[in-house]
Amino acid sequence: MKGNHRQWSYAAALSTVLLAATWTLHALETARDAPPAAQSSRVPQAVMPQYDKSGALLLPEDYRRWVMVGSSLGISYSDAPSDHEMFAHTLMEPTAYRHFVETGTFREGTMFALLLQASGDKVLPARRGQFANDVHGVEMAVKDTSHVPEGWAYYGFGGMGSVRGSASAAPKNSCFNCHAEHAARDHVFLQFYPLLTEAAAASKSR
Amino acid sequence: MKGNHRQWSYAAALSTVLLAATWTLHALETARDAPPAAQSSRVPQAVMPQYDKSGALLLPEDYRRWVMVGSSLGISYSDAPSDHEMFAHTLMEPTAYRHFVETGTFREGTMFALLLQASGDKVLPARRGQFANDVHGVEMAVKDTSHVPEGWAYYGFGGMGSVRGSASAAPKNSCFNCHAEHAARDHVFLQFYPLLTEAAAASKSR
Repeated sequence: MKGNHRQWSYAAALSTVLLAATWTLHALETARDAPPAAQSSRVPQAVMPQYDKSGALLLPEDYRRWVMVGSSLGISYSDAPSDHEMFAHTLMEPTAYRHFVETGTFREGTMFALLLQASGDKVLPARRGQFANDVHGVEMAVKDTSHVPEGWAYYGFGGMGSVRGSASAAPKNSCFNCHAEHAARDHVFLQFYPLLTEAAAASKSR
Repeated sequence: MKGNHRQWSYAAALSTVLLAATWTLHALETARDAPPAAQSSRVPQAVMPQYDKSGALLLPEDYRRWVMVGSSLGISYSDAPSDHEMFAHTLMEPTAYRHFVETGTFREGTMFALLLQASGDKVLPARRGQFANDVHGVEMAVKDTSHVPEGWAYYGFGGMGSVRGSASAAPKNSCFNCHAEHAARDHVFLQFYPLLTEAAAASKSR
């Protein structure tokens, strides 16, 4: 009887462990293989800017896969004509994008990347028009009050085949003042980002 | 003795279950809260095109958050000038993007979205240049041999404030033939997508 009891106990414990392990593996597989729709509906961890020991901003590894919110060609803040009109693409870090779409605010840690690309033309089948060609510059705008007291700071990573991995904040009078004066919302030129405005409006109407 | 043994057995079984449950929860949390870098390093499930019962392509819910691979202004396949130059942005479904970057090939199920946007100007602080404004058209290109024998098909979802949720494939002579003739790789105008070419080259050099 004692032997039987021990056997039952061991068998029960073993099957419990096996069941738990099976369920664990199943749950893990379910979590990992969940369809994209289910994955995107959960709230992802907020991605924040990272700095090196000197306080320089690190260029995020995945910035070229961020969400495109704005695009332009030949935008200039002066009246002087330019011989080298460039395409500019504004990409937004996805978790900050989601936060803005849901709340209408740029949270602490919001990151934008600006891709500056030369303009190409006369490549078949295009007979007219211009397309964005080689990358000539990478810049970032970051809202991080823990890093600079005024919140937003602007960073240039170079370009022309040699994008640097880190950059120090630009002097306040080189970007910040114009953004503070002209931005449609919180230092962001939302007036040039109708895709972002539309996404936020669509989120509200749901 | 029998009582002690039973107690020990129950206690052992219970602690085994609790341990397993704790580990399960921990593993689930780890899987769900993994930092983005770790998440992006695992291979995500391939996202495939979805169709309704009539065979019309469903516009994916998240297409505006896809990876931007190309941009242009006023591209035309004819020499005739246009009064309404439009921005065009090519976005690529992220799992197919990853496949291309790693292999240089467009796998079955590859999806591109083309956003056509009106051109805006004279919005401060921009004194010169043009920016992408309201969305006037949404189109898609999809490689799916199980759906059309020639592989690639092209879909128009309308625009101008009313993007449709589904679209039937365009007649073969409206898009396919030109793509077959002029595309730099497998019916895709890779010649206009230097960001995609660069990402694939960077992947090879790692």
